[in-house]
Amino acid sequence: MKQYQLTRFGIDGLALVDAPEPAPGPRDVVVRWHACSLNSRDLLLVEGHLAPDLPLPFTPVSDAAGEVVSVGNEVTAWRSGDRVVSHFFIDWQDGEGTPERRTASLGYSLPGLLAEYSMLPARALVPLPSHLSYAEGATLPIAGVTAWNALFPTDQAVLPPGSSVLLEGTGGVSIFALQLAHAAGLRTIITSSGDDRLARARSLGADATINYRTTPTWADETRRLTDGRGVDLVVDIGGAATLNNAFRAVRMGGAVALVGLIGGPNVEINVPQVFSQLIRIRGIGVGSRTDLLAVLRAIETRRIRPVIDREFAFNEVSAAFRHFKAGAHFGKVSSALLKRRNAFIRHSQTEIMTNTNRPNERRKR
Amino acid sequence: MKQYQLTRFGIDGLALVDAPEPAPGPRDVVVRWHACSLNSRDLLLVEGHLAPDLPLPFTPVSDAAGEVVSVGNEVTAWRSGDRVVSHFFIDWQDGEGTPERRTASLGYSLPGLLAEYSMLPARALVPLPSHLSYAEGATLPIAGVTAWNALFPTDQAVLPPGSSVLLEGTGGVSIFALQLAHAAGLRTIITSSGDDRLARARSLGADATINYRTTPTWADETRRLTDGRGVDLVVDIGGAATLNNAFRAVRMGGAVALVGLIGGPNVEINVPQVFSQLIRIRGIGVGSRTDLLAVLRAIETRRIRPVIDREFAFNEVSAAFRHFKAGAHFGKVSSALLKRRNAFIRHSQTEIMTNTNRPNERRKR
Amino acid sequence: MKQYQLTRFGIDGLALVDAPEPAPGPRDVVVRWHACSLNSRDLLLVEGHLAPDLPLPFTPVSDAAGEVVSVGNEVTAWRSGDRVVSHFFIDWQDGEGTPERRTASLGYSLPGLLAEYSMLPARALVPLPSHLSYAEGATLPIAGVTAWNALFPTDQAVLPPGSSVLLEGTGGVSIFALQLAHAAGLRTIITSSGDDRLARARSLGADATINYRTTPTWADETRRLTDGRGVDLVVDIGGAATLNNAFRAVRMGGAVALVGLIGGPNVEINVPQVFSQLIRIRGIGVGSRTDLLAVLRAIETRRIRPVIDREFAFNEVSAAFRHFKAGAHFGKVSSALLKRRNAFIRHSQTEIMTNTNRPNERRKR
Amino acid sequence: MKQYQLTRFGIDGLALVDAPEPAPGPRDVVVRWHACSLNSRDLLLVEGHLAPDLPLPFTPVSDAAGEVVSVGNEVTAWRSGDRVVSHFFIDWQDGEGTPERRTASLGYSLPGLLAEYSMLPARALVPLPSHLSYAEGATLPIAGVTAWNALFPTDQAVLPPGSSVLLEGTGGVSIFALQLAHAAGLRTIITSSGDDRLARARSLGADATINYRTTPTWADETRRLTDGRGVDLVVDIGGAATLNNAFRAVRMGGAVALVGLIGGPNVEINVPQVFSQLIRIRGIGVGSRTDLLAVLRAIETRRIRPVIDREFAFNEVSAAFRHFKAGAHFGKVSSALLKRRNAFIRHSQTEIMTNTNRPNERRKR
Repeated sequence: MKQYQLTRFGIDGLALVDAPEPAPGPRDVVVRWHACSLNSRDLLLVEGHLAPDLPLPFTPVSDAAGEVVSVGNEVTAWRSGDRVVSHFFIDWQDGEGTPERRTASLGYSLPGLLAEYSMLPARALVPLPSHLSYAEGATLPIAGVTAWNALFPTDQAVLPPGSSVLLEGTGGVSIFALQLAHAAGLRTIITSSGDDRLARARSLGADATINYRTTPTWADETRRLTDGRGVDLVVDIGGAATLNNAFRAVRMGGAVALVGLIGGPNVEINVPQVFSQLIRIRGIGVGSRTDLLAVLRAIETRRIRPVIDREFAFNEVSAAFRHFKAGAHFGKVSSALLKRRNAFIRHSQTEIMTNTNRPNERRKR
Repeated sequence: MKQYQLTRFGIDGLALVDAPEPAPGPRDVVVRWHACSLNSRDLLLVEGHLAPDLPLPFTPVSDAAGEVVSVGNEVTAWRSGDRVVSHFFIDWQDGEGTPERRTASLGYSLPGLLAEYSMLPARALVPLPSHLSYAEGATLPIAGVTAWNALFPTDQAVLPPGSSVLLEGTGGVSIFALQLAHAAGLRTIITSSGDDRLARARSLGADATINYRTTPTWADETRRLTDGRGVDLVVDIGGAATLNNAFRAVRMGGAVALVGLIGGPNVEINVPQVFSQLIRIRGIGVGSRTDLLAVLRAIETRRIRPVIDREFAFNEVSAAFRHFKAGAHFGKVSSALLKRRNAFIRHSQTEIMTNTNRPNERRKR
Repeated sequence: MKQYQLTRFGIDGLALVDAPEPAPGPRDVVVRWHACSLNSRDLLLVEGHLAPDLPLPFTPVSDAAGEVVSVGNEVTAWRSGDRVVSHFFIDWQDGEGTPERRTASLGYSLPGLLAEYSMLPARALVPLPSHLSYAEGATLPIAGVTAWNALFPTDQAVLPPGSSVLLEGTGGVSIFALQLAHAAGLRTIITSSGDDRLARARSLGADATINYRTTPTWADETRRLTDGRGVDLVVDIGGAATLNNAFRAVRMGGAVALVGLIGGPNVEINVPQVFSQLIRIRGIGVGSRTDLLAVLRAIETRRIRPVIDREFAFNEVSAAFRHFKAGAHFGKVSSALLKRRNAFIRHSQTEIMTNTNRPNERRKR
Repeated sequence: MKQYQLTRFGIDGLALVDAPEPAPGPRDVVVRWHACSLNSRDLLLVEGHLAPDLPLPFTPVSDAAGEVVSVGNEVTAWRSGDRVVSHFFIDWQDGEGTPERRTASLGYSLPGLLAEYSMLPARALVPLPSHLSYAEGATLPIAGVTAWNALFPTDQAVLPPGSSVLLEGTGGVSIFALQLAHAAGLRTIITSSGDDRLARARSLGADATINYRTTPTWADETRRLTDGRGVDLVVDIGGAATLNNAFRAVRMGGAVALVGLIGGPNVEINVPQVFSQLIRIRGIGVGSRTDLLAVLRAIETRRIRPVIDREFAFNEVSAAFRHFKAGAHFGKVSSALLKRRNAFIRHSQTEIMTNTNRPNERRKR
């Protein structure tokens, strides 16, 4: 089978090589991938920033969707032909995140999925909803679960309908958060530097939009849009670039979910601002398999379709990473994110042709 | 002004009398009502079941919407012309329900609103959303808040989107619960004895429907519709008639909200069933002014329109109560409830003509 | 090795037989038990009430503590010599209870622990705190976890210190609940039919006591003790005999945890009482391994010692069950419960002599 | 009556003046104060840092305890002779903090209590527990409520017994938090620069102590004391000086309550540290009257006695502030805090003599 390997850090270090097709152990499953999607951590890893000591060669990429082709003899949960999505933290099945549960992750401490086939333990997979294509399914594991836990953390009060949420930029996590928040009856406000992207966000359910380039005082605008009170929740993607504005945009007693660092990792905060405004901050780091199943359940209930920016063929992986990186380097947070989430890779045109003959693929757009 | 008084128990005991127009004390507000709605407690009170010792004459009816006509000199929250909705437990402003907060209630321990004008303390009112008519607004205080607290109790984890809820019958609380649950991205299953009512429920967002007359094993059907697991929440209206089926329809660890007693108040339960299924039962008794404001916020965010069954003129109050009672006496729970919530009373055709000249009334259907 | 087998239903059907010593599979652990404790479900099972279709012979008893003697080659969590306590629902490791997680239970769907040795999967054990004897440890799995989840359910708001709780009787779950509630700073009120038992409860931290024989209006007395408001939580053991009194003893908006059925399984409740008092009822059915670990952590933090009523030697099992049953048949709930929890069985005097030479056993009382 | 007025910023600006004794309006209460206590905000205000634009003269100090001497004719909650404690945010009665509820505060937006008498609305008082002296009661409103909400926030899961908490320094909030956490069965770890203060903390229930001067790596030591996992909660007093260590001391998924800024208000944080460790941060800003009542209830249940460092007579107010300030200027956080909370002022020796004749004062230490 074909497999990408990172032979040296840098996008040019990605090489397509031949590898033996995996045979499952008794509790394993072999999956033929039909699509995978890129997250910012994939680019950081490929470029040597995320794990500079990573022993090479290494197969990158965390998120994929495909079809089970064989199962070990102790596996009862899956059978050949099942459409599946990968689960990132394979040992984080349920409950709170612990160091033990967050150690094993695909495309980081374990080999990634940028290959025709992978062998995974049965617990590292979830079923792909029938209304989704493989490409759509591949966008879910990291971006979908991160958006989910930013909005609906199990250890906190979930916001009832009519609550308000501010989403920063139109990148992967933000667009998932927009779709999920809209499905939950929340009032959504979203920012971007591009009016075209804001228009598209409105078509996905955004109740209000702010162009942060033409309205750099977007935190004040958010307060204005909420009768001066501020939103109940901010999903903060921008880190250093946005956190202090997030504190100004959130209502007294509201929450800021930290999910990203697009604008840099280190930021000075004012402690009295946090405590006098009774702000709750929660760090979000993807989630459990149960969380991923909850995302799937919500997506099926409201027939939500993940938004894909651009598709690449399996042999265009370098182009996909470059597209992703170029976006990121524009210096525009939302633009970068928009490309980030949506850049994804199909394994081959041939495979896709085959897939379109399968009944549940006919429902694709 | 004109006012109804219950002079002796029974619908025939309702008399339209003249009363002096109220003048507000320093912290009071005088409201001219444009619509009120009937709840089952109103009928129970009029017929002498709810409060047999009630000193008569007494003006009944708890829920109404209207327009502020004058305010006391210490009132800053309201001014003449404001469109308002009444709040049932006037001293339950926020937080948990306590005996003190649940003592003063309109149309029970305090005079009701079946009158052209009432004087109320400022805290007994909330603003009517601009997209709603007075008739629609009048349906909110008891049925809307009860449905809200059944679905989104502040002391419990709120269900995230994709969770499932079973609603019994198509009465007032159930239809509000259907609309709010749908707005919150929940998967809704609803029962009724009438296929026409189920069809209407589907048009309001019901994901699945069960005719409990043709499918008396509706609890089993609910489990079947949820892959054998049961729903996350049942909003139980039926009391004795339905509670044990509710226990069978709910998933292990799920919740049953007790909000009604249509089928009788006393019911034998099996304690080991509750503890071996880890069932959570919560009694719901309307709610606070903050809860009512939350309902308004959700209704505004998703532009939800309350469903009205039939309208009566102010001088047709006896007919309205009889319509309500006839529904209840049909012996069909959903039918009774459907009429129950929806029966409401407009004060006069003339007033409504006047209202249609006001800008925010033009938006009415 | 020696093992008890139930050869026919009834205490007389318990026979001590020889069985081969178990050898661990790769993921298993063999434990030599030093003590086990009886729960009411053990007696119900032995007498044929709990599982009338149970294929016999069957080794009963769910809870035990002992010492690891050998481990399979894939086991890393345990090694020979470790002091351990059994975990009842072996597949319920964490998170919510589900049918799958609650299927496999020791001494019910799986063989019990009334034997010199058992082979268990590694996940069916937890470490015995060093300050506890084996006998004390053996009381924890069912009674301790049930009391824990009645008091500190993970899906609900935990009561802060100063909250009040009513405990019914002085049986196993109630005494654990007393100790844990006292450790949590809760104000505890406990009932019993015996003043001597109430005195002992006060020595364990009870803030107020009620002799329900001399004060049959114990629900009213509970309200009196709480300034007329009622307690924040009732841990209801008595089922049919007590539930309606529990509803009267709890404050508006308070909780009733259903954990037992000493007074019978079926009880008529008044639905409007539940909803007008905003009562929360939660069924408790033991808990997860994570819950058991939480009990251990609390017990270690405050050096809580479980209370043991009477000890029997391993060859006195019939006498132990009869003691237990006689207590239950006295007709006095608390008496029955007190004996119930506390009846436990040591394997042999010889073993205990040996054990007292082990360092961490010297700490025993 | 005598009253202190700040005539110009600085401790020397405090002048003892004559003022008319207040007469209550219909909903007001006049209280004769027997003790008040100092918080850091009082010093910040007096020195002109907290509110540089404050119109002078102004009577400072937020917290006091005393005796009702007269009530308005609409007041039913209080009567002459009642022992009472002041409530800081007088309009924050219950529920979440909002800007409206947090506007009116004693000794800041409203005149403070450094006077023989004050007139307050009835809702600005709570009853002084009978086992506490006035001096002890005066320590509760800000420090006690802040500690309470840091430990037991109503919008979050309360920590069950056996959970662990790290407290920074031995100042007012930390010592209250120590006493309350110990009462709640939590495992407490506390830091200080003085071994004598740590010894005293152990006598109040601290399970482990760290001298942060001799062990500057106190975050690592905290992890070591918790088997490498970190504590469930850190109550962060130190702001800039401690927050990043707090992030290292807390377990994955644990909480950091921000309550102070002893070490400075501005601090650079690392966003990925927060999200990869799933840290929850919550800003705490005192609390509601309901919170204060909850503190009283816990304190009464476990007969907790607040810890007082040093007492001053009413005419020694300048000395009290200087003592407080000197402490703060030592540069040792815990020392500063210890003095801060505990510095309090008795009105006069004479009054105290009188008080000792009152029955409920005899219980004083």
